[in-house]
Amino acid sequence: MTKKPSPSYSFRISLEMPEGTASLSRLMAALGKAGSEIWEMKVISQDEGRITREILIQAPDSDTERKTIDGVKNLEGFRLLEVIDCTFHLHRGGKIELANKIPLQNRQDLAMAYTPGVARICLVIKEDIDRALDLTIKKNAVAIVTDGTAVLGLGDIGPTAALPVMEGKAMLFKSFGGIDAFPICLNTKDPEEIISAVKWLAPVFGGINLEDISAPRCFEIEQRLKKELDIPVFHDDQHGTAVVILAALINALKLVNKHLEEISVVVCGLGAAGMASISLLFAAGVRRIIGCDRNGILYRGRQEDMNPFKAALALKTNPEGRKGGLYNALQGADVFIGLSKPALLQGKDIAGMARDPIVFAMANPIPEIMPEEAQPYAAVVATGRSDYANQVNNVLCFPGLFRGVLDCHARDINEAMLLAAVHAIASSVKAGELKRDQIIPSIFDATVHSRVAAAVREAAHNSGVARSRKAYVSPMKSG
Amino acid sequence: MTKKPSPSYSFRISLEMPEGTASLSRLMAALGKAGSEIWEMKVISQDEGRITREILIQAPDSDTERKTIDGVKNLEGFRLLEVIDCTFHLHRGGKIELANKIPLQNRQDLAMAYTPGVARICLVIKEDIDRALDLTIKKNAVAIVTDGTAVLGLGDIGPTAALPVMEGKAMLFKSFGGIDAFPICLNTKDPEEIISAVKWLAPVFGGINLEDISAPRCFEIEQRLKKELDIPVFHDDQHGTAVVILAALINALKLVNKHLEEISVVVCGLGAAGMASISLLFAAGVRRIIGCDRNGILYRGRQEDMNPFKAALALKTNPEGRKGGLYNALQGADVFIGLSKPALLQGKDIAGMARDPIVFAMANPIPEIMPEEAQPYAAVVATGRSDYANQVNNVLCFPGLFRGVLDCHARDINEAMLLAAVHAIASSVKAGELKRDQIIPSIFDATVHSRVAAAVREAAHNSGVARSRKAYVSPMKSG
Repeated sequence: MTKKPSPSYSFRISLEMPEGTASLSRLMAALGKAGSEIWEMKVISQDEGRITREILIQAPDSDTERKTIDGVKNLEGFRLLEVIDCTFHLHRGGKIELANKIPLQNRQDLAMAYTPGVARICLVIKEDIDRALDLTIKKNAVAIVTDGTAVLGLGDIGPTAALPVMEGKAMLFKSFGGIDAFPICLNTKDPEEIISAVKWLAPVFGGINLEDISAPRCFEIEQRLKKELDIPVFHDDQHGTAVVILAALINALKLVNKHLEEISVVVCGLGAAGMASISLLFAAGVRRIIGCDRNGILYRGRQEDMNPFKAALALKTNPEGRKGGLYNALQGADVFIGLSKPALLQGKDIAGMARDPIVFAMANPIPEIMPEEAQPYAAVVATGRSDYANQVNNVLCFPGLFRGVLDCHARDINEAMLLAAVHAIASSVKAGELKRDQIIPSIFDATVHSRVAAAVREAAHNSGVARSRKAYVSPMKSG
Repeated sequence: MTKKPSPSYSFRISLEMPEGTASLSRLMAALGKAGSEIWEMKVISQDEGRITREILIQAPDSDTERKTIDGVKNLEGFRLLEVIDCTFHLHRGGKIELANKIPLQNRQDLAMAYTPGVARICLVIKEDIDRALDLTIKKNAVAIVTDGTAVLGLGDIGPTAALPVMEGKAMLFKSFGGIDAFPICLNTKDPEEIISAVKWLAPVFGGINLEDISAPRCFEIEQRLKKELDIPVFHDDQHGTAVVILAALINALKLVNKHLEEISVVVCGLGAAGMASISLLFAAGVRRIIGCDRNGILYRGRQEDMNPFKAALALKTNPEGRKGGLYNALQGADVFIGLSKPALLQGKDIAGMARDPIVFAMANPIPEIMPEEAQPYAAVVATGRSDYANQVNNVLCFPGLFRGVLDCHARDINEAMLLAAVHAIASSVKAGELKRDQIIPSIFDATVHSRVAAAVREAAHNSGVARSRKAYVSPMKSG
């Protein structure tokens, strides 16, 4: 498989070169030979047979980027003036910033936004702490909390190296949910310390989004915080992933005419996402699930590589008591959900599944099986990648979910709210649009996020975790 | 003393009233009687002898605001349609928000700002953690950390009620220093827990601003954090106040032809600001200082109301070993610096000071002595209030100081940097402009903040706490 040029490795060069088609052809040839692709090109200046161009190029990887630049440097009569790596350039100084919602231009502004006027607001909140949900950023603020132990596919890279991911997440919160999310990268891996830190921090925030914290620590951290805080706590790697998987599965099942209650599902990978997915599948009505991890099928009484969460799971899954590897688990299964490692699965494993197999291979960035290899055997294939059809992407869930949660001042995020989000996402693909390569909506479909928000808000009200919507008005409000 | 109408108590009413001057006069009379003042007025609509106006009104307090509204309601032929309290309105939903520095409009944007491109940035920071100062928000981010124990003049109101003040502070950071400051309001008062929380939080931030933490806990918290973190830690209530006081004092002394080395200073109030001011006065060359608190003069061997910080101070101050109250301390003193409580001082106390007394009465919101009462006796009077001349305002210091600190990636804020800020502020009032009622620049003088930043940066470099300014360029940068 040749790697495709990607925007992650795009770079912009300024180049002085001879005029004319011949030079341009030589440039194209050099880029093509190195494996890069021209994306955009413009002329900066032209003078005495020389032309200066700015060219945006995409490469598949750093190595090709370097080779491409060397290739251009070696072109006779060309002069490379500047190279800017676009991804690095975009990150310079950070990707998010704070902004004032009103300007501070004179003493009047200051007297209201700061002393002495602000004291009036403080005193009102001191009397009734819930007023902070109306009169401060708490109304719209979410903490993105990580310890940097399970970041993307990179593993334990620490809190500082995790910051660019959390900033990116904050951008997604803002862009798709209108939410003010701030990165909290904690310099500790101790669950008790993480729990303490989040509890101490909570006053500023209307919700907590746990992110990229490794399993099984993440389970305890989330459970404890849910119990001990009066604002909602959500581990996106668990429940965000589970919600979007279930939404995609519901739509995929429509295409093959099967129902949740009758299918058998194999979930490969028993980390944060795998555990939460199994739990949500059960909640949605699935009855037969087999879990697998690096030690093969999870069964009651297994001794290798266990933790209390796996032990509890073993009691609820795999009713036939199967043993063995992934291949054995898949025999006769309707659905494969991979949340594990690259290249675990081969076409022939899928061939042993039930009719019209559904394969969600979501290991990142390289799936358990590449779509090209799975497609001949499977009825529906989905991955976590943006460069293939059916991208199972958490961004479909968390911005709308938190929007709904913040709008009704929910105290918690419960199963009813997760299932509401699932159905809002699934139903965003209309019956006429539903196809094997289109089982989930695009994250750029703006209606998805507001549908999720509305559904979550309603579920929060119905399940009693929404705070009563007081009409917060100033004490002076008069009729 | 009658209280003046203030923007803190401004409110906007919509009013339907009869046309004509007579009605307007009745309205004016009603407002005047209640003690409010019209600030702005506009016509919304006019129809059949009736006119709808929107009127912005300032009152001196909540009580007058209420009386004014009742007065307007009782005017015959008037109909009050709506009342909006401007300060509450401005706080609705918070005063700050997060913003994305670049838009997320398509998959290309996502591939650079989030997965998979962001992983390239994470890996670079994992290899060299200092790159976070270039490639993340850490370059420009400050945590405003409080436990809500000493907020404005309100005391211990808790972390949630303190949030509006911290948001206001964040606005000042942005507006005057271009800094991304985020409120961290901690739900603990335990110094060890506060220290732990800040250390765990530190990866995201380039600096820590401690705010409104009560003395003497604030001293230990600051000292420990300065020692244990590699980013600068600054308790604004201490050092910000001290810097602006010293700047104002330097200018005031020019007006009365005295020098720091020869004056004797009484500092009343031995909390955060008082302690830090004494320390900075000594650093600037002042030799004779007497400290006072609610138990009167601090002297070597005093037993009442002591703490380790006061005990250490007693060894360095009050060389004559004076005892007694504030009155005794002031006998023959050149300068009074009040950082204590309202109305402690009378004109006759000032009369006993040396020639041309300088009186800085900075208790907030009501000074130790009102300027009107001090002026007949003092050569120069300053307060913390915006409605009198010579407002000693921390905003003159912290935005520029942190701007300088972040720009050179300083590891610490040391005395040399504080003194550099002092002189930058003092010299912002040019010789020709220096007058008894103009010893400090306006916070709206944009040049002050950049002068402070430049001076602090230079002092950081000279004192060796600036990190070497690597020219952070992308690995692809080519010549």
